[in-house]
Amino acid sequence: MENFKEYYAWLQPGPVGCSASCSPMRPGRGVSLREVCVHGSEQADFAARELRGGLNWLAGQNICDENSGYKITLGLDPGIQAQGYRINGDGNGSFITGADREGLIYGVFAFLGKVGMGEDLPGISAESAPVVRKRILNHWDNMDGSVERGYSGKSLFFRDGRFCYDPSRMKDYARLLASVGINELSINNVNVTDASARLITPELLPEAAELAAIFRPFGVRLILAVDFESPVKLGGLNTADPLNGEVAAWWKNAARVVYDYIPDLAGFVVKADSEFRDGPAALGRTQADGANTVARALKDFGGTVYWRCFVYNCRQDWRDAKTDRPKAAFEHFYPLDGTFDENVVLQIKNGPVDFQVREPVSPLFGRMKHTKQAVEFQITQEYTGQQIDLYNLAVQWEEFFAAPISEHRLARDIMGKEAAAIAGVANTGCDGNWTGHLLAQANLYAFGRMAWDPGLTAKQVTSEWVCRTFGKNTEFDAITGMMLASRGVYEKYASPLGLGWMVNINHHYGPSPEGYEYMKWGTYHRADNTAVGVDRTAKGTGFAGQYEPWLEALYSDVKTCPEELLLFFHRVRYDYRLKSGKTLLQHIYDTHFEGAAEVQAFMDIWDSLKGRLPQGAYESVADRLKRQLQNALEWRDVVNAYFYRKTGVGDEMGREIYG
Amino acid sequence: MENFKEYYAWLQPGPVGCSASCSPMRPGRGVSLREVCVHGSEQADFAARELRGGLNWLAGQNICDENSGYKITLGLDPGIQAQGYRINGDGNGSFITGADREGLIYGVFAFLGKVGMGEDLPGISAESAPVVRKRILNHWDNMDGSVERGYSGKSLFFRDGRFCYDPSRMKDYARLLASVGINELSINNVNVTDASARLITPELLPEAAELAAIFRPFGVRLILAVDFESPVKLGGLNTADPLNGEVAAWWKNAARVVYDYIPDLAGFVVKADSEFRDGPAALGRTQADGANTVARALKDFGGTVYWRCFVYNCRQDWRDAKTDRPKAAFEHFYPLDGTFDENVVLQIKNGPVDFQVREPVSPLFGRMKHTKQAVEFQITQEYTGQQIDLYNLAVQWEEFFAAPISEHRLARDIMGKEAAAIAGVANTGCDGNWTGHLLAQANLYAFGRMAWDPGLTAKQVTSEWVCRTFGKNTEFDAITGMMLASRGVYEKYASPLGLGWMVNINHHYGPSPEGYEYMKWGTYHRADNTAVGVDRTAKGTGFAGQYEPWLEALYSDVKTCPEELLLFFHRVRYDYRLKSGKTLLQHIYDTHFEGAAEVQAFMDIWDSLKGRLPQGAYESVADRLKRQLQNALEWRDVVNAYFYRKTGVGDEMGREIYG
Repeated sequence: MENFKEYYAWLQPGPVGCSASCSPMRPGRGVSLREVCVHGSEQADFAARELRGGLNWLAGQNICDENSGYKITLGLDPGIQAQGYRINGDGNGSFITGADREGLIYGVFAFLGKVGMGEDLPGISAESAPVVRKRILNHWDNMDGSVERGYSGKSLFFRDGRFCYDPSRMKDYARLLASVGINELSINNVNVTDASARLITPELLPEAAELAAIFRPFGVRLILAVDFESPVKLGGLNTADPLNGEVAAWWKNAARVVYDYIPDLAGFVVKADSEFRDGPAALGRTQADGANTVARALKDFGGTVYWRCFVYNCRQDWRDAKTDRPKAAFEHFYPLDGTFDENVVLQIKNGPVDFQVREPVSPLFGRMKHTKQAVEFQITQEYTGQQIDLYNLAVQWEEFFAAPISEHRLARDIMGKEAAAIAGVANTGCDGNWTGHLLAQANLYAFGRMAWDPGLTAKQVTSEWVCRTFGKNTEFDAITGMMLASRGVYEKYASPLGLGWMVNINHHYGPSPEGYEYMKWGTYHRADNTAVGVDRTAKGTGFAGQYEPWLEALYSDVKTCPEELLLFFHRVRYDYRLKSGKTLLQHIYDTHFEGAAEVQAFMDIWDSLKGRLPQGAYESVADRLKRQLQNALEWRDVVNAYFYRKTGVGDEMGREIYG
Repeated sequence: MENFKEYYAWLQPGPVGCSASCSPMRPGRGVSLREVCVHGSEQADFAARELRGGLNWLAGQNICDENSGYKITLGLDPGIQAQGYRINGDGNGSFITGADREGLIYGVFAFLGKVGMGEDLPGISAESAPVVRKRILNHWDNMDGSVERGYSGKSLFFRDGRFCYDPSRMKDYARLLASVGINELSINNVNVTDASARLITPELLPEAAELAAIFRPFGVRLILAVDFESPVKLGGLNTADPLNGEVAAWWKNAARVVYDYIPDLAGFVVKADSEFRDGPAALGRTQADGANTVARALKDFGGTVYWRCFVYNCRQDWRDAKTDRPKAAFEHFYPLDGTFDENVVLQIKNGPVDFQVREPVSPLFGRMKHTKQAVEFQITQEYTGQQIDLYNLAVQWEEFFAAPISEHRLARDIMGKEAAAIAGVANTGCDGNWTGHLLAQANLYAFGRMAWDPGLTAKQVTSEWVCRTFGKNTEFDAITGMMLASRGVYEKYASPLGLGWMVNINHHYGPSPEGYEYMKWGTYHRADNTAVGVDRTAKGTGFAGQYEPWLEALYSDVKTCPEELLLFFHRVRYDYRLKSGKTLLQHIYDTHFEGAAEVQAFMDIWDSLKGRLPQGAYESVADRLKRQLQNALEWRDVVNAYFYRKTGVGDEMGREIYG
């Protein structure tokens, strides 16, 4: 029997999950679910089965499913915007209508979600279509079963060099992704290994096709991460030069083989010329040469190339203060605007560096007018607490969408336009609760919801997740509250004001203020005894000049620069007065004491809910919060000691700093 | 045919080694080697074969070996001090006499060495016996073939979980160790794994016995590193408590099995209660309880337990300024003086911390009067350049032996007395030249020679190695010179004046001034904007009080403390004036500029020898020096920038520091 509980206790099966009997969700009271029956045309078969299964689970028994009682009719209406749906109803029945099969599935999940949140069936009414058509989850899973930057157990797909999964759990996963509108899924790490490079060969394609078949009915199409060097490594050619005819032919043939097995593959994602991986630049070609050659191989099959823009000098000399890593992506890609084929999408990280707690929007957004783009978010919490610390990413994403990219446009305004896609690096794995930290489920939930509609607020999607997971109960507003506060709290105890990178090297958890200071990664804050930060204005590295003039001016003036980005754009003396009237140094001390104290407050909130939450869920989160407090104290004391030792100036309030 | 070239081109076979034809060594001119013959009693058979082989190789053809010409007679004389030998000769022949089989082997190698260095056979005369009876090489080899802190390729003994070696090369290795007087050899890492724990079981003992048989005729006895938890892990007991009767019985039985296979096993080496490994303290027992229980199992078989004293809190809170890692070994072991069994040897690192470039002598030496001790040196260059940078350890060891341990005694004075053994962590591996850096061979050479006679100077053993490796040529004095200078040069560009630990974490190569500053390893320099270093006098952590009062006073007074240890014992302001008249800060700048410049001078010296050295040897070392220069520049600039950023005070000479 299939496991339908993911509909309601969202993403929450396994050890800490609710059993049906403890499900906090209650169906609406107006219509008894026992009397419901589901109807639909042949095309609606799959959606109808999903709806019945969900309602059965909600009802705690099989619904009647005969021609009597309350009738839910499923159908298609090509007049609705692609992938969209419409739900309405009256006293006798409800109608769920999709623009297409995908839209119908989304409509069914939307309907089930509302039933689960306690709405009366006849009153359920909705109409929605996605703003962004490609909503992509990127797994960084390796075929040995490890997950790069994964904090939720082993890979859902691979083990020991082969595909390896429980088909029933995989179907749960497909349903779960569809339930939040994700419709494309890359399964292997963009750091392609010799093993995973072979995913596009007949050796592994049969198994890849089996996996694709599980996701297909849910409207989720697979993507494969491929190695730019494949023509050499797999094809035995002596070059991967994209302008070489044999190379182009190799890609065309490779694509033909792949699409024989997976006719609806969404495409390939490529990390090239990046972090010790070869790419077109290494061969004297442009990124467009590289991307277009692969894209032309996929074109006839309707495939897309997602070409990552994470290109920078990872062998930088720290002495070199002119080279500035945030400038790299723009410098590499902006000059090529308009030269990419139609089925190339440039996949650009949200900020110009690398998923730090606080970064400005990448200057490529809005400046590239003639190239399809994807925003890449990191759902997995590499730099944001690694699913030990609570960190609600919806808050960060809301800020991203609301950030100006020019005088008259916000990042949100290009979504569904230049930004043809939104991708997120997955935070899921084989842990029982999918995401390690139970509350980190909300980040995957929010990702799907906000990719569908970038106008949604963090508060909306977070409270929705809390309600769908723990139940409708005003007491649980406290959970929503602490989740919404969590990003700010983490930011307070981590590196200050957009500085970033004060993390331990390699694993990136916990503080090491100079861990990356003298390394080759282009990640320098250059703190000395009087000041900290890098001047990225025209007087400094000039990074700010990559934005449109209005925005450059905003960032370049220390008075108008958003204060939370102050140390990203400016080098500032410790005695500089912030808008609060505090010195920069005192601000650092204050925020770090506050941040750790606020984690303690989270623990108190969570404790106050003991007994009102499933015990497993309570304990699991309580344990993470305890570990988070340790981390917050470590961050607090290390960062404070670090700046104290630089300056010799203590805390005005006399709190303990370890000199 | 056996490969005898290790006698002369010492340790130098493989890709960069000399062929016989380019051998820089020439036999003496007085007696033609063609006329030599070797005689000896049955007991001298093996030694005679070794001597013939060596002479054949030196002569470039078989020596006559009949009853005519120049006769070398081998024999035993129990009147000579154990393991010792005597060599003398006249016009008609030479006599090599050993106290025992081992002594005879050492005599033969001493004789061959002198022949190789150009001495005339009749004039060769020597008498020597080791000061320290146990001269031990510790391999940190894992059974998967990796070598912990190894910089010379894979393990000589193991691969993929099994024994794996070329018996002929292993015989070369045995000869090579014997030729410098090493007589005990532990083959597996003291960080015992589940795999290597099984070395004391019948599963692996047959192969261990085969290996022992290769080393046996050379007078080298094996040691096995064992897991203190073996009674649990191998024996299935529910405790490893050394006072538990079943545990003691388990060890006795295990020893019986081991000695069935290897009757002359020298013993076990144990790392317990150290760096996340369990030990007696974890069970509420003393180190003596632990060591004695294992020792009693070995006693009947003549085995020794080498019990390492590397016990400290590796989970220290950096905020805790009272706990001071250098104090740990003394605190754990000094109170137990006199409670260890006769066949326990406490193996104590040379300094109180962990093989840093500059440390004082461990305070355990000289203070423990009633316990057998072994000095543990690290031949492999973990913190001293990893066989990329040239670092002649003989200089450091000479300093060690010459350092006072009380008002009237030097460390040298307890060698062969309380210090019953000297152990070194091996720097050898499967690299063609054994040690990665060709010149790092000299460190193994020096280790053996100085363990035999701690009165030897670095200059003696280094020039000996240079002569035996490259030939007798005054031009090569420049090599000796740069090798003798190398420790000081490295020290100049690394962390200053005994501070230590400014290395990159985990791998320990290259600079990271605060890499370990906030970690759990007890390794803190606590640099701030005015001062650096830890006060270890009675006013500080009190570490200096572990020495005898005279020495404590010496170290505790900033005026009498040896300046090279200044920052080990004291917290000093950057504007403190050193004996040179320079401020501490300017001293740091100066030494760092000098250190890097001196590496450049090494390169010039080496270049000047091009054509006079075998091309492979020339190129191999030239390549390492190039890499060393990069490292030296990195150290120079990072350390200088680090202190400049702390103080805001620049170099008096205006040289470039990267702020």
